[in-house]
Amino acid sequence: MTNLIEYEDSSDEVRAVYDDIRTTRSSDYINNFWKVLANHPPTLRRTWETLKEVMVSPGEIDPLMRELIYIAVSVTNNCEYCIASHTAAARTKGMSDAMFGELMAIVATANMTNRLANGYQIPVDDKFKTL
Amino acid sequence: MTNLIEYEDSSDEVRAVYDDIRTTRSSDYINNFWKVLANHPPTLRRTWETLKEVMVSPGEIDPLMRELIYIAVSVTNNCEYCIASHTAAARTKGMSDAMFGELMAIVATANMTNRLANGYQIPVDDKFKTL
Amino acid sequence: MTNLIEYEDSSDEVRAVYDDIRTTRSSDYINNFWKVLANHPPTLRRTWETLKEVMVSPGEIDPLMRELIYIAVSVTNNCEYCIASHTAAARTKGMSDAMFGELMAIVATANMTNRLANGYQIPVDDKFKTL
Amino acid sequence: MTNLIEYEDSSDEVRAVYDDIRTTRSSDYINNFWKVLANHPPTLRRTWETLKEVMVSPGEIDPLMRELIYIAVSVTNNCEYCIASHTAAARTKGMSDAMFGELMAIVATANMTNRLANGYQIPVDDKFKTL
Amino acid sequence: MTNLIEYEDSSDEVRAVYDDIRTTRSSDYINNFWKVLANHPPTLRRTWETLKEVMVSPGEIDPLMRELIYIAVSVTNNCEYCIASHTAAARTKGMSDAMFGELMAIVATANMTNRLANGYQIPVDDKFKTL
Amino acid sequence: MTNLIEYEDSSDEVRAVYDDIRTTRSSDYINNFWKVLANHPPTLRRTWETLKEVMVSPGEIDPLMRELIYIAVSVTNNCEYCIASHTAAARTKGMSDAMFGELMAIVATANMTNRLANGYQIPVDDKFKTL
Repeated sequence: MTNLIEYEDSSDEVRAVYDDIRTTRSSDYINNFWKVLANHPPTLRRTWETLKEVMVSPGEIDPLMRELIYIAVSVTNNCEYCIASHTAAARTKGMSDAMFGELMAIVATANMTNRLANGYQIPVDDKFKTL
Repeated sequence: MTNLIEYEDSSDEVRAVYDDIRTTRSSDYINNFWKVLANHPPTLRRTWETLKEVMVSPGEIDPLMRELIYIAVSVTNNCEYCIASHTAAARTKGMSDAMFGELMAIVATANMTNRLANGYQIPVDDKFKTL
Repeated sequence: MTNLIEYEDSSDEVRAVYDDIRTTRSSDYINNFWKVLANHPPTLRRTWETLKEVMVSPGEIDPLMRELIYIAVSVTNNCEYCIASHTAAARTKGMSDAMFGELMAIVATANMTNRLANGYQIPVDDKFKTL
Repeated sequence: MTNLIEYEDSSDEVRAVYDDIRTTRSSDYINNFWKVLANHPPTLRRTWETLKEVMVSPGEIDPLMRELIYIAVSVTNNCEYCIASHTAAARTKGMSDAMFGELMAIVATANMTNRLANGYQIPVDDKFKTL
Repeated sequence: MTNLIEYEDSSDEVRAVYDDIRTTRSSDYINNFWKVLANHPPTLRRTWETLKEVMVSPGEIDPLMRELIYIAVSVTNNCEYCIASHTAAARTKGMSDAMFGELMAIVATANMTNRLANGYQIPVDDKFKTL
Repeated sequence: MTNLIEYEDSSDEVRAVYDDIRTTRSSDYINNFWKVLANHPPTLRRTWETLKEVMVSPGEIDPLMRELIYIAVSVTNNCEYCIASHTAAARTKGMSDAMFGELMAIVATANMTNRLANGYQIPVDDKFKTL
C-alpha cells in the first residue's frame, strides 16, 4: 500500500510535482519523503507547495537559518527522517560542524528551560505580554 | 514555597547571579524566570551559566538567530512563558514583524512534515545517513 | 529481563489475559505488545481491560474511526510500534489507501495549526469557552 | 505588533481570505485564529487554503470524524486554542456528549499505550511491517 | 455540556466512585478532575480504578516517589492541571522545597540530554540493548 | 562529521572530561553519548558538568529514584538512546523488574490523565494554586 513511487512509475499529477522539485533544487534526486507522499497525490502537491513557499521563496530569514530552525523543531519532536534529511540540506547550504554544535546546544538548552518554566508554573512578566 | 524572590530579599549566592544577569544584559530588570529559579539556588546558578554560554558567548550563529531557534523549540513545546520572554528578547535584538511571520511559518511547516514522515514511517535515504 | 513471554510459557494470570485477547479478536495471534507487557502482569491485565473497553465495546464512534483517532495520537507522539500495529488494525477494519492519506493530511495540518496558535499566543474567542 | 486584524481594517489580500472563510462557512464570524494570522498575509492565505482542502473538501472521512481526529492531535499537543475552537466546531457538526467522552477516552488510552510501547522498547511484529 | 458535577447532583454510578475517592483519600474533597470526568461515567470509573491501582496500591516504589515520577511526566507534557494537583499531593506526602528543586533539575536536564541524543542521532551502545 | 571520538584520539580538552567521567563512575567505559558530544567540546564539558551535578551530587532524592525520574521523562519524549542507557544505569543501581513495571505503569497513567485534563480543559482548583 505505502510504496516508494519512482519517477518512471508516477502518474502525470505526481510527475508534475517531481519535475518542479527537480527544477527548484537543480538536482535529479527525489528523496524518499516525496516518493512516499506520492501515494496520496493531493498531500504531495500541497506539502511541496507549502515547503517551497516557506523554505525557498525570498524572505528576511536566509535559507541556511531556515534549515537550522527546521532542524530545531525536528530534534524537539524526535523525527528521525526530518533530522537526517534537513541536516544534509543544511550542510549543503553551508552549515559548519561548529554551527551544528551550537544549534544542538541551543535546542537542548531551550528544551531544558522550557521545563523549568512549566514545572515552576512561572507567571509571564507584564512587560512580555503582547495581546 | 515557590515565591518570586526579589533582589532585595536574596541571599548572597542568589544575588551574585542576579548581579551577573544585570551586567550581562546591561539592564536592572530581573525577569520572573530567575526570581522563581532562585528558590533552588544551584538550579538558578547552573541554568544562568548554561544560558549565558549558549545564548550570549561568541559563536557562528548570531544572537538574533539564536533567539529564533529558541522560539522554534518553545513554540513546538507550547511553553507560554518561554515564547513570551524570548519573543520579547528577539524583538529587542531586531526581529521584524515579517521575520516573526516567517519564523512561525517555518515552525508550523516543520511540525506538519514531521508528522507526515512519522505517519508514513518513511525510511531514511542512504545518502542522508551519517553515523 | 524484558522478554517476549510466549503463551506456552505464561503463568495462569497472564494466560487468562491471552485467552481473552484471542477470544475478543477471534485470532490466535498475540502481538509483541502483550508479550512484553506480560513481564508485569498487573499492567498487562489493566491495559488490556482498558483497551478492550475503549476500543471494542459498543459506543457512538465506530470501530474504524476509533482506530483512526488512535493513529492520529500515535503519529503525533511518534510511537513507531503503535503506528505500525494500529495501521494494520485499521486496514483490517476497512481503511482504504485514500482514507489513510486523508488521515495523514488531517494529522499533519493539525500539528501545523497547533503551532501557529501557540506561537502567536492567540486568545480563545469568548464563544468557544465552555467551563 | 500582533494585533487582531478586523475585517474593516484589513488589506485587500487579507479581505479576500476573510471573504472566502465567510462564504465557505456560511457565517460572518471570523475567529481570532484568522485575525491573528492576518499579521502575516502569506501565512493566512496558505493556512486557510490548506485547512479548507483538508477539512472541508469531499473525501472518504466524514466532516465530523475529521474534527474528532483534529481534536485528538490538539489534545495530545495541549493546544488550548485548538481544542476550544475545534470542540466548538465538532459540536456544530453533531458531536454528542457521549461521543466527546469516548473521544477523550481513546486519546487518553493511546497516550498511555504509546508510552508503554516506548518504555519497553517493544520490537514491531514482522506482520505489521509495511515498507 | 462539560460541567463540574457536584456530589449532591451525581448519579448513583458517579457517586459510588466519589465515595471510593473519599474513603481512599480520607478526605471529603473531590477535586475538579473527577467532577469533570463524571460527565462520562465509564471514563470516571476506569480512570479512578487505574489511578488507585497505580498510585496507591502496595509496591516497591514509595508513594512520594510515585508522585515525583508523575510530576516529571506532567512537566514534560506541560499539563498545567496535573502539575498543580500532583505538586500539591507530593507536598502532602512530604516533598520538601529542596526535593522539588532537585526534581525540576532532573526533569530539565533529561529534557536537555534527550534532545542532544535525538539531534546527534546517537547509536545505542550494544551493552545497553535488551531485547 | 559526526564521529564517535575515542579516548585515544581525543584532544586534551575532551580527554579531561573523559577522565572525569571514568573517575566519577569508577569504570573505563565511555558510552556513545559522550563520544558523540565530543564533536563539540563546549557542549561535552557543559553537559557532563550539569549531569554530574544533577544526577550524582548529594541531595534529598536518592540516586536510583533520580534514574527513575530521568527514565520517566525519556519515555514521555520517546528518546530511544536515553531510555536504553538510563534503564541500564537504573538496573546497576538496583532497579528490580517489578520496580521497572511499576515505573512504566505510572508513566503510562500520567500520560493518560494529562490528556484527560487537557482535553476537558479542567480548571485548576483554587486550593492547588501556589503563585
